[in-house]
Amino acid sequence: MALIVHKYGGTSMGSTVRFRSVAQRVAKWVRAGHQLIVVPSAMSGETNRLLGLAKELQPAWLTPESQRELDAIAATGEQVSVGLLALALQAQGVPAVSYAGWQVAIATDSAYGKARITSIDDTRVRADLAQGKVVIITGFQGVDPQGNVTTLGRGGSDTSAVAVAAALKADECLIYTDVDGVYTTDPRIVPEARRLHTISFEEMLEMASLGSKVLQTRSVEFAGKYRVPLRVLSSFTPWDIALEEEARSGTLITFEEDEKMEQAIVSGIAFNRDEAKITVMGVPDKPGIAYLILGPVADANIDIDVIIQNVSHDGKTDFSFTVHRNDYVRTMDLLTKEVLPATGAAQVMGDPKICKVSIVGIGMRSHVGVASRMFRTLAEEGINIQMISTSEIKTSVVIDEKYMELAVRALHKAFDLEQGSSAS
Amino acid sequence: MALIVHKYGGTSMGSTVRFRSVAQRVAKWVRAGHQLIVVPSAMSGETNRLLGLAKELQPAWLTPESQRELDAIAATGEQVSVGLLALALQAQGVPAVSYAGWQVAIATDSAYGKARITSIDDTRVRADLAQGKVVIITGFQGVDPQGNVTTLGRGGSDTSAVAVAAALKADECLIYTDVDGVYTTDPRIVPEARRLHTISFEEMLEMASLGSKVLQTRSVEFAGKYRVPLRVLSSFTPWDIALEEEARSGTLITFEEDEKMEQAIVSGIAFNRDEAKITVMGVPDKPGIAYLILGPVADANIDIDVIIQNVSHDGKTDFSFTVHRNDYVRTMDLLTKEVLPATGAAQVMGDPKICKVSIVGIGMRSHVGVASRMFRTLAEEGINIQMISTSEIKTSVVIDEKYMELAVRALHKAFDLEQGSSAS
Repeated sequence: MALIVHKYGGTSMGSTVRFRSVAQRVAKWVRAGHQLIVVPSAMSGETNRLLGLAKELQPAWLTPESQRELDAIAATGEQVSVGLLALALQAQGVPAVSYAGWQVAIATDSAYGKARITSIDDTRVRADLAQGKVVIITGFQGVDPQGNVTTLGRGGSDTSAVAVAAALKADECLIYTDVDGVYTTDPRIVPEARRLHTISFEEMLEMASLGSKVLQTRSVEFAGKYRVPLRVLSSFTPWDIALEEEARSGTLITFEEDEKMEQAIVSGIAFNRDEAKITVMGVPDKPGIAYLILGPVADANIDIDVIIQNVSHDGKTDFSFTVHRNDYVRTMDLLTKEVLPATGAAQVMGDPKICKVSIVGIGMRSHVGVASRMFRTLAEEGINIQMISTSEIKTSVVIDEKYMELAVRALHKAFDLEQGSSAS
Repeated sequence: MALIVHKYGGTSMGSTVRFRSVAQRVAKWVRAGHQLIVVPSAMSGETNRLLGLAKELQPAWLTPESQRELDAIAATGEQVSVGLLALALQAQGVPAVSYAGWQVAIATDSAYGKARITSIDDTRVRADLAQGKVVIITGFQGVDPQGNVTTLGRGGSDTSAVAVAAALKADECLIYTDVDGVYTTDPRIVPEARRLHTISFEEMLEMASLGSKVLQTRSVEFAGKYRVPLRVLSSFTPWDIALEEEARSGTLITFEEDEKMEQAIVSGIAFNRDEAKITVMGVPDKPGIAYLILGPVADANIDIDVIIQNVSHDGKTDFSFTVHRNDYVRTMDLLTKEVLPATGAAQVMGDPKICKVSIVGIGMRSHVGVASRMFRTLAEEGINIQMISTSEIKTSVVIDEKYMELAVRALHKAFDLEQGSSAS
């Protein structure tokens, strides 16, 4: 008997028919002798519907007081899901009980809309499990020390599931979603993309933060911190496939590096086109200039990703960075009106039509020349690299958006990631 | 400065436009210097939508465990409403904070779907009011001693509002609804029906329990027990009518009998066609027979209203009672299969096409002959009375359903209730 956490995404909870299917899948695990905790998302579209209603009514400027109300409203989507799933299980003769985050309690800080889990009380859940009940817990939400409902932000249900698995020391946390695992890259771009049977936690973290949408970044961090074995698998397989087959499907995120016989150098190619590039040209090259430029940007709550400072010529330099494309206009405006006069820079130039392509692999640690192979591959395709950013297990380049598919395909091939290549 | 509770029904919360209108009305009261607590219902249709989803998934037999889930699901409708209303008030610059029942907390017993409020903690609410905030509290729900969400049953938001008003010792509880007050009878049946400016709590209790749908019976009981001044008024007047006018509109439910210069004998005519009549014929007239017949009915959780036992002839009697029309088939079945053999009664006869018409008035206490005037009026119209039931302030008759409108109109006229008659 193992203690297993299942997490189901919104598309897995799209209709009462899908609820019944999820209930049958959970029942299969229960009948195989396992203890089950289930964290379902809100029904697909429900969170957007609720926030749409709120948006029609909310003040022009969101205060902490309004954020508090938004969280309380958005949290109801999952509260409906857990109740419906409990009913669906009870209808199949499986004892089940649902809890909202505050009932467990899943304690968080008070950062509405992006709260962080601080602790989880396992008393009530353990008692129910001991009585043979399936325990269904709302994802995406918790309760702060003052008893206010908080939400963890979009995709927060992944984090809830992993946190619950960590608190209860579950044997495995299964993230059921609409894809059947983590791929070497997006199969819509590279049809030869291969599903990874395992991926290291650190690689998964890079893949998630670089734009692979399979798992929320924070949930991967959490899994890493508490060493929760995590598996991404499809909720669209028939619910009655053999449990042994299901338990081995998808992609397992591991913490045991030596689990694999041979480590692939590169595990996957991630990409995103959510960023825009901004260059401040002719900046006087003196101490404190980076702060003068980026300080106001950070103060405006704009996240900065890649940052490059060129070598200087004649006491002047160029300074480039990327921001989320949604923040592009606001950042350009800020730089032009505030930063340019303050720094004496010559000019601000922007380009929203860029993309970032990254190779990710734990094997890069011990293999030299991985980055250079990446650069050579792009050169052979005539793709100009605008910015470069590296870490121990990933190398990212910023290129013109129009070359994105070309770059991803060429790199996927150059690093032998196609189906039929040596499996990781 | 007064402490006022506003309650808004589902039709008052039908759309974001209506939310904004409610917020403007509340803001008007705040700007006039009052402290406000608001209890809004779920958006119209929302509770039905949620229970519809649940019904598709729930087990064939509802267990207490399933009832618990139904309550948790249904309670989310009001949780969305309070958040949206808080946002709408904040958007108008009025500080506001929302609470679910468990956050207040509104403590109830554990009778899912029909829980009773046991206590209300006013600490948090008083602190917010002192800070100048409008406090918005979910109706219809509370939390039991084990931390489970409970609901009070349909129309429970009226009870929540009155209970909150009682706990906070509010100066008045205003029930905003889609009618503009309590009428001498339903204006759809009698166009001359007159709005009552005041009605005594006891009369209102009879009107509510006899089928007038303006207020939930339990909320009237609560108001009576704690002497909460209660006013029923329309939420469809323009929100910007003068506050003084609004504060005098609708119908005030009073506890001061001497408030009125002259007490009308009859205040109103109530009716309902939700009942069905059942007669057990040829019952041996011996002690314990009523229990033999009604015991099994009560055990099956079927509510019984009017009960009549005829005088006996030759040691046999007939025994009649009414049940809700929804329970008619089940009751007939129960009597035929279980009660008939056990009692040795001759036959069970049923009639679902009946209605109950009642005259209600506190003045009946001190005026003789009111009932006989009712019977004479019905006789003059050729309406046969099948059953009679009386109390200190009401007389009810059961008649053929087809005579309902005729009876109501004739009685309304006979007791001088038309517009233009002496006002109550």
